Amino acid sequence: MSPALRPRNDNFLRALLQQPVDRTPIWLMRQAGRYLPEYCATRRRAGDFLTLCKSPDLACEVTLQPLARYDLDAAILFSDILTVPDAMGLGLYFEAGEGPRFERPLREEWAINNLTAPDPYDHLGYVMDAVRTIRKALDGSVPLIGFSGSPYTLACYMVEGGGSKDFRHIKSMLYARPDLLHRILAVTTEAVTAYLNAQIECGAQAVMIFDTWGGSLSHAAYSEFSLVYLQKIIAGTHKTWADAAIPSIIFTKGGGQWLEQIAASGCNGIGLDWTTDLAAARRQVGDRVALQGNLDPNALFAPPEVIAAEARKVLAAFGPGNTGHVFNLGHGISRFTPPEHVTALIEAVHQAQGSEAR
Amino acid sequence: MSPALRPRNDNFLRALLQQPVDRTPIWLMRQAGRYLPEYCATRRRAGDFLTLCKSPDLACEVTLQPLARYDLDAAILFSDILTVPDAMGLGLYFEAGEGPRFERPLREEWAINNLTAPDPYDHLGYVMDAVRTIRKALDGSVPLIGFSGSPYTLACYMVEGGGSKDFRHIKSMLYARPDLLHRILAVTTEAVTAYLNAQIECGAQAVMIFDTWGGSLSHAAYSEFSLVYLQKIIAGTHKTWADAAIPSIIFTKGGGQWLEQIAASGCNGIGLDWTTDLAAARRQVGDRVALQGNLDPNALFAPPEVIAAEARKVLAAFGPGNTGHVFNLGHGISRFTPPEHVTALIEAVHQAQGSEAR
Repeated sequence: MSPALRPRNDNFLRALLQQPVDRTPIWLMRQAGRYLPEYCATRRRAGDFLTLCKSPDLACEVTLQPLARYDLDAAILFSDILTVPDAMGLGLYFEAGEGPRFERPLREEWAINNLTAPDPYDHLGYVMDAVRTIRKALDGSVPLIGFSGSPYTLACYMVEGGGSKDFRHIKSMLYARPDLLHRILAVTTEAVTAYLNAQIECGAQAVMIFDTWGGSLSHAAYSEFSLVYLQKIIAGTHKTWADAAIPSIIFTKGGGQWLEQIAASGCNGIGLDWTTDLAAARRQVGDRVALQGNLDPNALFAPPEVIAAEARKVLAAFGPGNTGHVFNLGHGISRFTPPEHVTALIEAVHQAQGSEAR
Repeated sequence: MSPALRPRNDNFLRALLQQPVDRTPIWLMRQAGRYLPEYCATRRRAGDFLTLCKSPDLACEVTLQPLARYDLDAAILFSDILTVPDAMGLGLYFEAGEGPRFERPLREEWAINNLTAPDPYDHLGYVMDAVRTIRKALDGSVPLIGFSGSPYTLACYMVEGGGSKDFRHIKSMLYARPDLLHRILAVTTEAVTAYLNAQIECGAQAVMIFDTWGGSLSHAAYSEFSLVYLQKIIAGTHKTWADAAIPSIIFTKGGGQWLEQIAASGCNGIGLDWTTDLAAARRQVGDRVALQGNLDPNALFAPPEVIAAEARKVLAAFGPGNTGHVFNLGHGISRFTPPEHVTALIEAVHQAQGSEAR
């Protein structure tokens, strides 16, 4: 199968490229996840989360699970954003109920100076195998999204040594030793660019950069420590591969105040969290970029008729026409979401547009 | 001492009222807190945090500690935002290292229907005693700020039963049973209004409403479930007391996208977190409201010369003139802040303006 083959349902790709669509495409961040019993079963079989990520066949299996259940318009590679720092030698592990941790947090100047960008084929071969396997299994049905964490977001985990409430260590570095943080970000940018390019070369048909913690930065620091590196990645990743355009999406959670700047980064689409008014966002960015989002994931706890009404509000907020809109949640789906509520959401998005099946 | 007496240093009040000031006033959210060894000593003496809050003399002692150390332009009542739901009978307690918890989270319809607004003099007398004691001890030096949590923020804790990462329970209620949430918010609004009025009657010279979790709402839900109740509180609190104007501040953390709406709420000042560009905020709100903020609290981990430079950036961002600006952090000060770094910040703010002491 040639990577150039356009998927039969390419609404997602066309929406990002500002081309006409048959219907507003929908996919859900973290659509392969713990709210699905079949995911939990595979994960149990894998033993633990990292093994699941590192087993291409199992990663493929869980990637496809939501597509078997729901009429979704895109698949997204199942992986973890911390595979890159893991490949840099920081020693990723998961403490039960505690989230990700690194054995060797990155705080010493000598360690920062020694940091190098891993070759994705040599050190992240299991991800490339997963991309190839998933792309083959999709068999031209819907596009496959590749992804990475943003340099600043990866640096947060690397410097803090795990998740954080206050980002005290990385912020201390940012204000006291910005040169060290810029060094980490530069190496990570090189790594992420190579990682995304390798994913594209192996079959990813679009790429998304998750800037989960960019929104914890001050206005000025966001430009200097996150956005500038996102721009470099966008500039450095393949815009086409095997004659197909490869669109890119930037998602800065909490970045609603910086949409103009993100729109100027060169990306094709901006992911919006649920705090941003989609109508105002569209007025701001015009047709320079597509918009992806932005239903509050917690709306999925409501009864189906409320979910349908909330979905229609998002579609109405985007406004007339559906060119340049990818329906999604404003953040990853909660593990407590009833799976049948997702059915209600997807049906509502499709029905609200009165469109026929592809 | 008459509550009408203007403090000798009333720069803070004048800034909020858009009147000329001798210098940009500065105070720090959570300025009486764990970063001060003298606070830790008093807290140890009290035994636990709630006892400290509920002992007017000890609350007064810690309120004054940062003023003894630093040249601050305002004092803020030492208390907890959860005193109001505690007075409603939810049973506030603190689990070591876990933050606040309620023994009886508010999720059942019958309990919500039974909720009533406590009389602040009857059920929160210890707070009123603290306000009177602190006001007397300040002896006309600087103004005393009273405060409350916002109805939505209090409801988050009440429904979740403590802090939360995802606000799953309250968001479920918001989408599935908005009538129940509106009932909680209406009663809490009544309680907060009475609470702030009682604080003013006992000596508070300004009031601030902490909408800590308003920023977790969607654009539409923020208006409906937080801002409308903030407006009601502003409309219902004393605008003057004993011939003195009582200015009000609304601080919605993460509310940078909604400044126009907050500015129209009737408040005198808006608190800004560090993600908002102060220059852009001033352009948006003009001289309709004062702005309070907005240095990243993590900047205080940097060396003193960097802190001074970051402080000057905030002053420069506010722009020409200092009318209508209250310098503050964009969030509460971290417990890990070196106390001498706060000295550096306050000196920098004062020196950058070349102003003489009051």
